[in-house]
Amino acid sequence: MTNIKAGIIGGAGFTGGETLRILLHHPQVEIKFVHSRSNAGNKLYAVHADLLGETELTFTEHLHYEEVDVVILCLGHGESRVFLQNNPVPEPVKIIDLSHDFRLAENAGNFVYGLPELQRKRIKEAKAIANPGCFATCIQLGLLPLAKAGQLQEEIHISAITGSTGAGQKLQKTTGFTWRNNNISTYKAFTHQHLHEIKQSLASLQGEFQQEINFIPYRGNFTRGILASIYLNCPLSEEEVVHLYQEYYQEHPFTHVSSQPVDLKQVVNTNKCFIHVQKQGNKVLITSAIDNLAKGASGQAIQNMNLLFGLEETAGLLWKPAAF
Amino acid sequence: MTNIKAGIIGGAGFTGGETLRILLHHPQVEIKFVHSRSNAGNKLYAVHADLLGETELTFTEHLHYEEVDVVILCLGHGESRVFLQNNPVPEPVKIIDLSHDFRLAENAGNFVYGLPELQRKRIKEAKAIANPGCFATCIQLGLLPLAKAGQLQEEIHISAITGSTGAGQKLQKTTGFTWRNNNISTYKAFTHQHLHEIKQSLASLQGEFQQEINFIPYRGNFTRGILASIYLNCPLSEEEVVHLYQEYYQEHPFTHVSSQPVDLKQVVNTNKCFIHVQKQGNKVLITSAIDNLAKGASGQAIQNMNLLFGLEETAGLLWKPAAF
Amino acid sequence: MTNIKAGIIGGAGFTGGETLRILLHHPQVEIKFVHSRSNAGNKLYAVHADLLGETELTFTEHLHYEEVDVVILCLGHGESRVFLQNNPVPEPVKIIDLSHDFRLAENAGNFVYGLPELQRKRIKEAKAIANPGCFATCIQLGLLPLAKAGQLQEEIHISAITGSTGAGQKLQKTTGFTWRNNNISTYKAFTHQHLHEIKQSLASLQGEFQQEINFIPYRGNFTRGILASIYLNCPLSEEEVVHLYQEYYQEHPFTHVSSQPVDLKQVVNTNKCFIHVQKQGNKVLITSAIDNLAKGASGQAIQNMNLLFGLEETAGLLWKPAAF
Amino acid sequence: MTNIKAGIIGGAGFTGGETLRILLHHPQVEIKFVHSRSNAGNKLYAVHADLLGETELTFTEHLHYEEVDVVILCLGHGESRVFLQNNPVPEPVKIIDLSHDFRLAENAGNFVYGLPELQRKRIKEAKAIANPGCFATCIQLGLLPLAKAGQLQEEIHISAITGSTGAGQKLQKTTGFTWRNNNISTYKAFTHQHLHEIKQSLASLQGEFQQEINFIPYRGNFTRGILASIYLNCPLSEEEVVHLYQEYYQEHPFTHVSSQPVDLKQVVNTNKCFIHVQKQGNKVLITSAIDNLAKGASGQAIQNMNLLFGLEETAGLLWKPAAF
Repeated sequence: MTNIKAGIIGGAGFTGGETLRILLHHPQVEIKFVHSRSNAGNKLYAVHADLLGETELTFTEHLHYEEVDVVILCLGHGESRVFLQNNPVPEPVKIIDLSHDFRLAENAGNFVYGLPELQRKRIKEAKAIANPGCFATCIQLGLLPLAKAGQLQEEIHISAITGSTGAGQKLQKTTGFTWRNNNISTYKAFTHQHLHEIKQSLASLQGEFQQEINFIPYRGNFTRGILASIYLNCPLSEEEVVHLYQEYYQEHPFTHVSSQPVDLKQVVNTNKCFIHVQKQGNKVLITSAIDNLAKGASGQAIQNMNLLFGLEETAGLLWKPAAF
Repeated sequence: MTNIKAGIIGGAGFTGGETLRILLHHPQVEIKFVHSRSNAGNKLYAVHADLLGETELTFTEHLHYEEVDVVILCLGHGESRVFLQNNPVPEPVKIIDLSHDFRLAENAGNFVYGLPELQRKRIKEAKAIANPGCFATCIQLGLLPLAKAGQLQEEIHISAITGSTGAGQKLQKTTGFTWRNNNISTYKAFTHQHLHEIKQSLASLQGEFQQEINFIPYRGNFTRGILASIYLNCPLSEEEVVHLYQEYYQEHPFTHVSSQPVDLKQVVNTNKCFIHVQKQGNKVLITSAIDNLAKGASGQAIQNMNLLFGLEETAGLLWKPAAF
Repeated sequence: MTNIKAGIIGGAGFTGGETLRILLHHPQVEIKFVHSRSNAGNKLYAVHADLLGETELTFTEHLHYEEVDVVILCLGHGESRVFLQNNPVPEPVKIIDLSHDFRLAENAGNFVYGLPELQRKRIKEAKAIANPGCFATCIQLGLLPLAKAGQLQEEIHISAITGSTGAGQKLQKTTGFTWRNNNISTYKAFTHQHLHEIKQSLASLQGEFQQEINFIPYRGNFTRGILASIYLNCPLSEEEVVHLYQEYYQEHPFTHVSSQPVDLKQVVNTNKCFIHVQKQGNKVLITSAIDNLAKGASGQAIQNMNLLFGLEETAGLLWKPAAF
Repeated sequence: MTNIKAGIIGGAGFTGGETLRILLHHPQVEIKFVHSRSNAGNKLYAVHADLLGETELTFTEHLHYEEVDVVILCLGHGESRVFLQNNPVPEPVKIIDLSHDFRLAENAGNFVYGLPELQRKRIKEAKAIANPGCFATCIQLGLLPLAKAGQLQEEIHISAITGSTGAGQKLQKTTGFTWRNNNISTYKAFTHQHLHEIKQSLASLQGEFQQEINFIPYRGNFTRGILASIYLNCPLSEEEVVHLYQEYYQEHPFTHVSSQPVDLKQVVNTNKCFIHVQKQGNKVLITSAIDNLAKGASGQAIQNMNLLFGLEETAGLLWKPAAF
């Protein structure tokens, strides 16, 4: 059985912790080092308290690139590029980066955009992976089958609600409990940065794609998950669209087309994406739900790692759902 | 000082309780009876426990129409019409009905649609009021100024999130804590029943109005409030639209145009509607927030009552906000 | 009708905002200035966004002591004493301080401990009031009648759960949404600073009082309110204890003895305290609930202000409850 | 590798669903049937929607005892005994019952109380297991080491807060979202039914145990988990008590003594119990946290199953924690 040796960079943040939670139970991975400048010398469970009893590993400030097959970067946006410039990763070691630094073709270099449902084959052959954004994953999975069928012929309308972990670990007003509890609000309407990678992916499937995408992101009062509603005019019948989705995703183990309406908690603490399709008049409405930290970040990173190293795509990623 | 005598029908439900909470502190209203078949004989605080210490009133199964100036019906949808047929209200007594039974012109009879920001003058002269729906209030207040200016010239897109009290008191899966806590979901996409009254009002201001309204309602994991995002193509500049809204609402004491983005909790436990307007490319985006039980139901009912009887419009409706 | 002129110091924090929300609707109070160094020049609603539409007042860095009858200090613990030393309040102006700086006799100077249910008469004649702590208010109201009857003869056991606003406005890990949502934890077990003022008050009613008080405070995942469970051995029957409480509180308008079990939301956004008493074997169990920002802080401050100036004790304090 | 064949009775409830979530990923278990009268013929994911994509199993009304090594009963309290009388399980098939029907010695018959940290050896040799209650598990794990050391010499004081799933699937007022969200309340003070099994276990370790246990249970506004605070007078030093706990639990893979204070979410969606011990004056305070559906129900049931069949105790029980 292949045994992959991994190093984590930025292990003290939300996605770093989630990556650790996954890898500690991954049957074919050994964690060789967990890098964190601010926490060097501390036990992992000093930061991620739930890990008490699972590991005695400590954070380190040293980068033992020579001991690993892959490094996973869980740094803030803009920090990965700088980090890699200052700490270049030697040739045979593969890279998975969770930031947005290498997602767009114009800045990607040798990084491959890591959405397995879009380009599993390219991922398998990559040396470096740019892991998609959380909103971007949820929305793309809701649109890829239509794009592949060339059916994105009109303006697209999206509202999507994200949990607080999407905003990262840094304390700010909108992630404070007193403000956010029982509250709801929008932000970055029409201008969310993930629109770029979404459009790039859609254009790769539907060459002429240049429709406007209207996206209203909401801050939700929960910690985990994204639920997106996506609609556009579409001449196909509901049955035809459902069929497109079923066919597109039948070879993909984490994305499921539900015949029933989906709600967010069905996918929390899983690496799944649940999709529901319905037709109302001329509009097709797609509801898509993921866990922003799992399929939207660390889970997808490990899915990509599995592909990079020829492991089973689902290895270490079939968890007990939280459900409630 | 005028002293209005009021009777409440259906006082044991959510909107009944909220109407009582308001009227108990209204300086110009005396509650003469609170009707409830299932709770007849019980103290109000046996059902609405927070009212302990505020009143020793009991529920009654008798309808003392002869003692009151107004009856306020807080019954379920479909129940008001039946109730009034079986228990006709005598001539001089005015009626405010919170159900949807009399909101649409084709079924309204002598009921006037009670949205003061739309038709305060007609309300003042009415004998019976059909109080608007909660989503309908939030969305109309977000669109009336554009309708009046004849600027609803293209398809309208709305996503809006409501609290659990909007679903009423009856227990069901989607209002159970285990299901709803930390969850989010959509329902009645494109087909919510409030669309009818919304279209009716918009058409009354902009005669030719027949644009499609695409409305995605969400169930939110909070108890009170509705936040709506509404957008459409509009050739006016942001300044022009803001000006339309400020002008439209300057004589209306509860609807305020905020220069800053609004979040839901700013209006919880108030009778206010906060509106924020921004322009992004060709799209104008209006965010509108109300408390579904206040401006979206019982608060607006009392606002209508104030207008019916020539009281100050804000009488009894300036409460300490909950804010947190 | 008396018209009290008030100045607020520290108006930008949680208790400052809550004091403003109350005073803006108080029929006999005029706010003359709201002091805040960091927000000088800004509208109140720039900080307390819910106040849009209620006032155009701005924060000021000037202390217009000469214009007011009373100043209300909403500063952090330890800051009030320093502030008053640097900015002495001239003779006729009364002071209400919400911090813990003047609550204990050894540091009180001319400050009177402002728990109306303990010593309304002394408050009425005071020049300066030390407003009680939130846990301290909730727990004392649960114990005063027993203390007055000399029935605190054994060790006392208390668990109590507080909302996030009790921790103040400063962002910290335990008030972050991601940490606190759906979480529960204890802190300062047996050592919470409010124990001092609780013991001081109990001893003032039951001279020999020196029982141990075991107090486990919990951080709850809600924003407003405190619910306390208090028990001790007591030879009286349930009827006798209930009678003691009813008698003790019959002249106090905000503290009510409920014959039914109480839950937290019954008092949220009210100035009330709800108390339930039951007996189980030798133990008497008292459940006490308040809103930490209202009866536990700003509401009680205004209750004290009313007493200081001979107003009706409930003036400006009978609000529509939030209930849900 | 042993392959255990399991049948689930009552698979449509909360603990039934949780048992399924665990067993579907258990490497050494095959689910042979999932019994549910009301859902017979439906897919598991028609009830437990998160299981879409994990299994195509359906509920059945047939009891295929002949195909299984063990049946796990996830029925309501009082229902298990009746069910087993009406549907007796043949000799070689083992039974794990999650109800309280067989927990107390006087009604246990051949059922062994299934708390591995109390009596792993007896469990390994049992034919039938009475799985402990959720509060009972959390509290016993907080007291067993002191009981074994004979240190429960004085009255014990406990407050503990549980999530909504502890109340089961049936809709009722106190599990409704509108009531429970942001609320807190106590119930069954001093009389909770789990006290019996707690006392039975403590007496089995500390023969003369007959101290009073004062237990205040709280309903918390979260879905999963129990946090308990337990204190009593104890002459041992903090170091001595911590040492007792570390020694007691060193051979138990799921119960961990934390040197840092614990909060509830550290154990949510894990089978762990986290315990923190501190001393304050004469009092020792133990904080104990579990997930009520995992270590407090279905997780512990599978832990017992592992022991019954000689599997690794942790098999199928090392999940990715939810953490947030």
